[in-house]
Amino acid sequence: MRFKRIEEKDIRVLEDSIGRDRISTGISNLKLHSLDQSHHSAHMPELVIWPVNEEEVSFILNYANHNMIPITAWGAGTSLEGNPIPVYRGIVIDFSFMNKILKIREEDFQADVQPGVIYQDLNHSLRHKGLFFPPDPGARATIGGMIGNNASGMRSIRYGSTRENVLQMRIVLANGEIIDVGRRSQKSSSGYDLLRLFVGAEGTLGIVVQATVRLWGIPEESSSILVSFQDIKMASKAVYEIIRSGLDPVCLEMMDSACIKVINRIKGLDLDPYETLILEFHGSSKGGVKESVEFAQEICDSLNCETFLSGIERDEYKRIVDARHFLGEAIRKNHPGRLHTVLDVAVPISAFPEMVSIAYRETKDIDVPAYIFGHAGNGNMHLAFMVEEQNQREWRKVNEIKDKIIKKAISFGGTCTGEHGIGIGKRAYMELEHGRGIFWMKKIKRLFDPNGILNPGKIFP
Amino acid sequence: MRFKRIEEKDIRVLEDSIGRDRISTGISNLKLHSLDQSHHSAHMPELVIWPVNEEEVSFILNYANHNMIPITAWGAGTSLEGNPIPVYRGIVIDFSFMNKILKIREEDFQADVQPGVIYQDLNHSLRHKGLFFPPDPGARATIGGMIGNNASGMRSIRYGSTRENVLQMRIVLANGEIIDVGRRSQKSSSGYDLLRLFVGAEGTLGIVVQATVRLWGIPEESSSILVSFQDIKMASKAVYEIIRSGLDPVCLEMMDSACIKVINRIKGLDLDPYETLILEFHGSSKGGVKESVEFAQEICDSLNCETFLSGIERDEYKRIVDARHFLGEAIRKNHPGRLHTVLDVAVPISAFPEMVSIAYRETKDIDVPAYIFGHAGNGNMHLAFMVEEQNQREWRKVNEIKDKIIKKAISFGGTCTGEHGIGIGKRAYMELEHGRGIFWMKKIKRLFDPNGILNPGKIFP
Repeated sequence: MRFKRIEEKDIRVLEDSIGRDRISTGISNLKLHSLDQSHHSAHMPELVIWPVNEEEVSFILNYANHNMIPITAWGAGTSLEGNPIPVYRGIVIDFSFMNKILKIREEDFQADVQPGVIYQDLNHSLRHKGLFFPPDPGARATIGGMIGNNASGMRSIRYGSTRENVLQMRIVLANGEIIDVGRRSQKSSSGYDLLRLFVGAEGTLGIVVQATVRLWGIPEESSSILVSFQDIKMASKAVYEIIRSGLDPVCLEMMDSACIKVINRIKGLDLDPYETLILEFHGSSKGGVKESVEFAQEICDSLNCETFLSGIERDEYKRIVDARHFLGEAIRKNHPGRLHTVLDVAVPISAFPEMVSIAYRETKDIDVPAYIFGHAGNGNMHLAFMVEEQNQREWRKVNEIKDKIIKKAISFGGTCTGEHGIGIGKRAYMELEHGRGIFWMKKIKRLFDPNGILNPGKIFP
Repeated sequence: MRFKRIEEKDIRVLEDSIGRDRISTGISNLKLHSLDQSHHSAHMPELVIWPVNEEEVSFILNYANHNMIPITAWGAGTSLEGNPIPVYRGIVIDFSFMNKILKIREEDFQADVQPGVIYQDLNHSLRHKGLFFPPDPGARATIGGMIGNNASGMRSIRYGSTRENVLQMRIVLANGEIIDVGRRSQKSSSGYDLLRLFVGAEGTLGIVVQATVRLWGIPEESSSILVSFQDIKMASKAVYEIIRSGLDPVCLEMMDSACIKVINRIKGLDLDPYETLILEFHGSSKGGVKESVEFAQEICDSLNCETFLSGIERDEYKRIVDARHFLGEAIRKNHPGRLHTVLDVAVPISAFPEMVSIAYRETKDIDVPAYIFGHAGNGNMHLAFMVEEQNQREWRKVNEIKDKIIKKAISFGGTCTGEHGIGIGKRAYMELEHGRGIFWMKKIKRLFDPNGILNPGKIFP
């Protein structure tokens, strides 16, 4: 890449157009935008800009494109694969000031938002309307960032990932051109699906400046369940059997005993320190939900679960879910001084028990702290390690294990990343996973961004 | 377009590779592949080939690409916008012989199929396993054709369109290259979403030769309902109110009284000849389903429905659904000698009642037979006309009405086609609906098919 370094005259042009108060070369701002929540090395941008509207974004991209300056879009910096780290420096566009909920279209179960909206804030605004936006990556992510990574979380088993919950977007392309993709109707067969091409592209094809997201009604009845097992293989088998049986949980999470111990300690909970499943069923009637719970209990009992706690109180359940959301941070807090690296494979559900077995086998005797958890119900397994920064032996071992598990997941027909994106860390697996497909992805990249200014150094090996 | 006409030597090359028995220039075969179920003019291809594997498809495309011969993929010819009509002649590839269900992956709720599989046949094979493939365009469509048009139908309100029910595909590109897109895991954030780019591309970017589709469990409890109204505005309002209330029907169809009269006559049914909704609720328990039905009844009663028949027997319901599936054909049979043209707009649900009102107002006093129906629950309205082939006045009138309604749907944030695709008939609306987006669609087209051999004359104006 032959990018240009930013000079005084570039800054003057940008200041003239954007205003001096929303452009910074201050070291603390550059540092704040140099790393995400992954272990990937920090890279400071040369400039941070906080635009307030799409015209400014368009101006910045057009200018950067003409001058070969890298552009990286920034939401909240909560991603886990280095996705927004400006590895080639240049400009980081921070969307904090484009954080308006523009319109709640209650009658259509839709909301128009700017990319800087934090998804929890959107859900907070919606709570009295009985509506919610389901993808929930946990951290205080922005909707723009979630679109970039096709983020998902605990509810995706029922409601899909971000990709399935965005209807329309306004995109600024590398050349500054602004296009609308998608429609507000629930279905369409009109031309090529540009919308879903931009979702999950990690800001390498264009930058989203507005989105219409899909909302759902909050269901009337729900029941929350905690199941614990002595044996993680049985827990993962229960996951498969529950899905296989045709039950339709809205949440089916797994945490191993190490995770449970951490959240007990950091969040002051008192959960049984075993291999644990969190299950939730929704429905329009108490009867329907009750039957689902009973069916799930039969399955778990037959697999020798230790405890099966159903009908957990709403407050208690919220504490558990909050703890689950906080798990990544809790793990990091539990090992000060170590770096966090997390695996994010997803496989067809029948392969989930084997993935968990491999993860368990590979990590049980190593001296690097390791945690197995994930959105089990859609075959998405995480394996987090806390590694000593300077310990080459630990890194080598951890990378060996990650490599083995990722290759296994791909061999099962799965993917090297269920929800964190490729970023920096998974680029090495693109070819194995996509074969010749990656060649066509590159061609699409060059089509939309011929100068390669948009988030360079990501996705492609 | 400067395509080459097929010569004797081309046929010899293809015969040498494919075999003489699966290539035809016979007039009856050419005629059979010259038109679909729309009113669009027939165009005969110069050659029909029935490949049996992907290598043959690859050979044909590679040869055609080098020799500038148009290629149109053919499923069952049931589409409604001229999508598979070979308007520039050339070769039609008929997938009738690639109709194998390769593997039913019961444990993952997936099936690997060839593109020539008729979706009803897949569902027939699955019925004893308690699984089904939900998209149901009605006619005996092939899965390849459904992928091409992103087809959907009565169940899409709950299960999505074809796009949401395909996980992985093998595609032959214009140059003969074979690529795999998508993964078998339920979620992925790995690179650009090529899978969904090819779904709905109407065979203009590549040709699908294998697909892994998503299956769902057949729910245990269901209740089917027929509601009739004297006033079509009230019927369409009920649609909106049912969705708005958060009820989760798996089917919410509308047929106007004209449709009901036709299916009564052609299918020997005895339904009340009013504006009618078909509703179906699924659930895991009788109680949950019952509550949904009661809630729907309250809504319909408050809108002065004429009758609300719930708990319809399974056999009776199947007869009604079959009749609904047969509606297009029934309308055609009801007007021998006239041509069939059908509108397929989809709008955000709040705009559905107004769309229906406009359709009703515009058609109530014309002397061309017109029928309003559709997958109301996802805002998808059809308006079918039976037009005298040579009657210019009728065509002018019908085209005026269609134009007005399509423009209105687009102005509501909707689409000119919910499920039939752009084909020939909707090309004129691409720019209005997509603005500058169409320019980028064209660039993608040129990227994948620089010679423009794949289904030329479709999608783009």
